[in-house]
Amino acid sequence: MGHYLSREQSVLEFSHANAPVLNIESGESVTFQTYDCFSDQIQSESDLVTSIDLSRVNPATGPVFVKDARPGDILKVKIEDVRVRSWGVISTLPNMGVLIHTAETKTKIVPVDDSKIAHFNERIEFDVNPMIGVIGVAPAGESVPCGHPGAHGGNIDTHTITKGATVYFPVNVEGALFGLGDVHASMGDGEICGTGIEIAGEVTATLSVLRGHTITRPVVETDEAWYTVAEDHNLETAIRIACEDMQRLLVARWDLSPTEAYLLMSVAGDVRMCQCCKPSPVEQVARFRMPKLRNLPRLLGE
Amino acid sequence: MGHYLSREQSVLEFSHANAPVLNIESGESVTFQTYDCFSDQIQSESDLVTSIDLSRVNPATGPVFVKDARPGDILKVKIEDVRVRSWGVISTLPNMGVLIHTAETKTKIVPVDDSKIAHFNERIEFDVNPMIGVIGVAPAGESVPCGHPGAHGGNIDTHTITKGATVYFPVNVEGALFGLGDVHASMGDGEICGTGIEIAGEVTATLSVLRGHTITRPVVETDEAWYTVAEDHNLETAIRIACEDMQRLLVARWDLSPTEAYLLMSVAGDVRMCQCCKPSPVEQVARFRMPKLRNLPRLLGE
Repeated sequence: MGHYLSREQSVLEFSHANAPVLNIESGESVTFQTYDCFSDQIQSESDLVTSIDLSRVNPATGPVFVKDARPGDILKVKIEDVRVRSWGVISTLPNMGVLIHTAETKTKIVPVDDSKIAHFNERIEFDVNPMIGVIGVAPAGESVPCGHPGAHGGNIDTHTITKGATVYFPVNVEGALFGLGDVHASMGDGEICGTGIEIAGEVTATLSVLRGHTITRPVVETDEAWYTVAEDHNLETAIRIACEDMQRLLVARWDLSPTEAYLLMSVAGDVRMCQCCKPSPVEQVARFRMPKLRNLPRLLGE
Repeated sequence: MGHYLSREQSVLEFSHANAPVLNIESGESVTFQTYDCFSDQIQSESDLVTSIDLSRVNPATGPVFVKDARPGDILKVKIEDVRVRSWGVISTLPNMGVLIHTAETKTKIVPVDDSKIAHFNERIEFDVNPMIGVIGVAPAGESVPCGHPGAHGGNIDTHTITKGATVYFPVNVEGALFGLGDVHASMGDGEICGTGIEIAGEVTATLSVLRGHTITRPVVETDEAWYTVAEDHNLETAIRIACEDMQRLLVARWDLSPTEAYLLMSVAGDVRMCQCCKPSPVEQVARFRMPKLRNLPRLLGE
C-alpha cells in the first residue's frame, strides 16, 4: 500500500527551504495527484491564457522527503503509472512559441478517452502518451520556479518520462525533496507552441536511493534507451551539454575513450528535442538518446 | 529492367549547368552506384581525414534528366533499396562537431555484415539503417556544392531517407537533374561528429513527376509519418522553417486554420534533428515529423 499526496500539497518552486509534506523510506511508492499546468484555472475555451493568474502555473505536488537520501546520492524514480482526466487544454502562449507569429490567442479543450485517445476535433483523433512535464528535486542553491528546467530537473518536458520509465536525479539536499506535476496527455518533441495537452492527473512512482554513482543532471531510462537531458537558453549549448553527459557515461560504463564514445554517439545515438519553443523566456531543453545495445552494461544502477 | 548509373558518373555540385548522364521517362527506376562521402579516399585507419583531398568529398551520382519534369512540378523519388559495402568509415572532422573539443583526430573502420549489422569493436555491435545523406535536384539559381543542404535537397542527412521512404522535391529546372550519394550504413539524429558510418553503396529509386501540388523544400514520407526538412546556419531558424512548411501542408490538406495546425503540431508532432554538429561550416538541418493520423488525407500525392 503506497502513500497518497493530494494536489493541494504542492509548491511553485523547487527549493531546499520547502517543508516536506511526506516522509518515506527508500523503496516506497507514492501516488501524486496533480493539477494541470494552469492550476486548473482554464475550464472552457472562453478561458484564455491571457486572463489567468500566471503566478500560479506549473505547481508540483510535494515535496517528498526520502530518508537517507544525501547530497551526492542518486534518487531513482520509477514511474509506475500515469493516469489523466477526461479532458485537457491546449493553448497558445503570449509572445512564445515557434509559430506564434502565425497564430491567434486560442484555448482548445480536447476530450481524452480513458488515458488513451485524444479527440482534437470531430475528424482528428490520435493515441496519447501520458507523460510528466515537471519532475525534480530541490537544488542546493537558489530556488528554481517549477516552470523552469535545470540540473535538478523541474520543467524538463521530456516525453519519454511516462509509465515504465525511470528517472535518475542527483540528490542535492538531505531527503532530496522530490516533487512532480504538469502532466500532459500528449506532447510532441519540442512542444512548439509551449503546451502539450495540459491535464490534471495522478502519477504513481517508486522512489529509491542509489549510492556509488554520481550524476550532475537528470538521466532517463526506458526499455529501449538511455537519455541525458540538459537545458540552456541557447539550444546548441543544451545539445552540447547533453552530449557531454552521455559521453561521460559511455566512457565510464562501456569502457570507451572519449573519442570512441563520440564516434559511437554520432552513428548510433540521437540528439532529440524536449522543449524548443523560442521565442520563450524559458530555457530550451535537449536530450541525447543512446539505445541499449546488445550485451553491454547498464549506464546507471544494477 | 531499370537503368544503371556507375559512380564514375557523378557531380560535386547540384547545378542547372550539369549535363545529364541519363534521360528517363517519369515512372522509371534507376540504380545509382555511389562512392562514400570521401570519394573512397579513406581505405584504412591510417588514412586520416586531414590528409585527403577535401575538394572531392560528397559526390552525387547523376544527374538524371526526367522527361516532362518542369519547374513548379514535384519530383517523387521512391527509395526501393539501399545496399552497402562490407565496411564503412567513421571519422572526426577538423574543427567541426559537437564534442570535437574532447576528441583526437581519428579514422575508424567498421565492418558491416550484409547491410544489417555494424561491428563497432569486439564488444559493441548494432543494427544498421542504410540511408542516403545527399539527395536532390538542381537549383534554379546558383550551383550548390553537394556537401551543403538547401531547398533543392543536397546534403540533408535525414536518416528517415531509407528503403521504403519517398522523398518529394520541388522541380526547379527542366528535367529536374536528380542525383544522390553519401550513403551511410547508420547515422544518428544530429550526426554530432559530422559523419555517420560513411560507406559506398547502391541505391535503387523510382522517379516520377507529380503535378497539381507545389512545395518549396523537400518533404519525406515513410509508412508512419510525413516530414518537412529545412536548413539554416541558425538551428532555431531551421526548426521554424520546417514547422512553417508543415503548418502550410496541414492547413491545405487537413483543413485546419493556421492556429489549429500549430496546436496540433505541438501536441502530436515532433521537431527532430537531421544535422546539428556545430561548430561547422555547413548549415544545420531540422525536420518536423507529423505522424499519419487515422482517416486523414495524404499530405502530398494520391
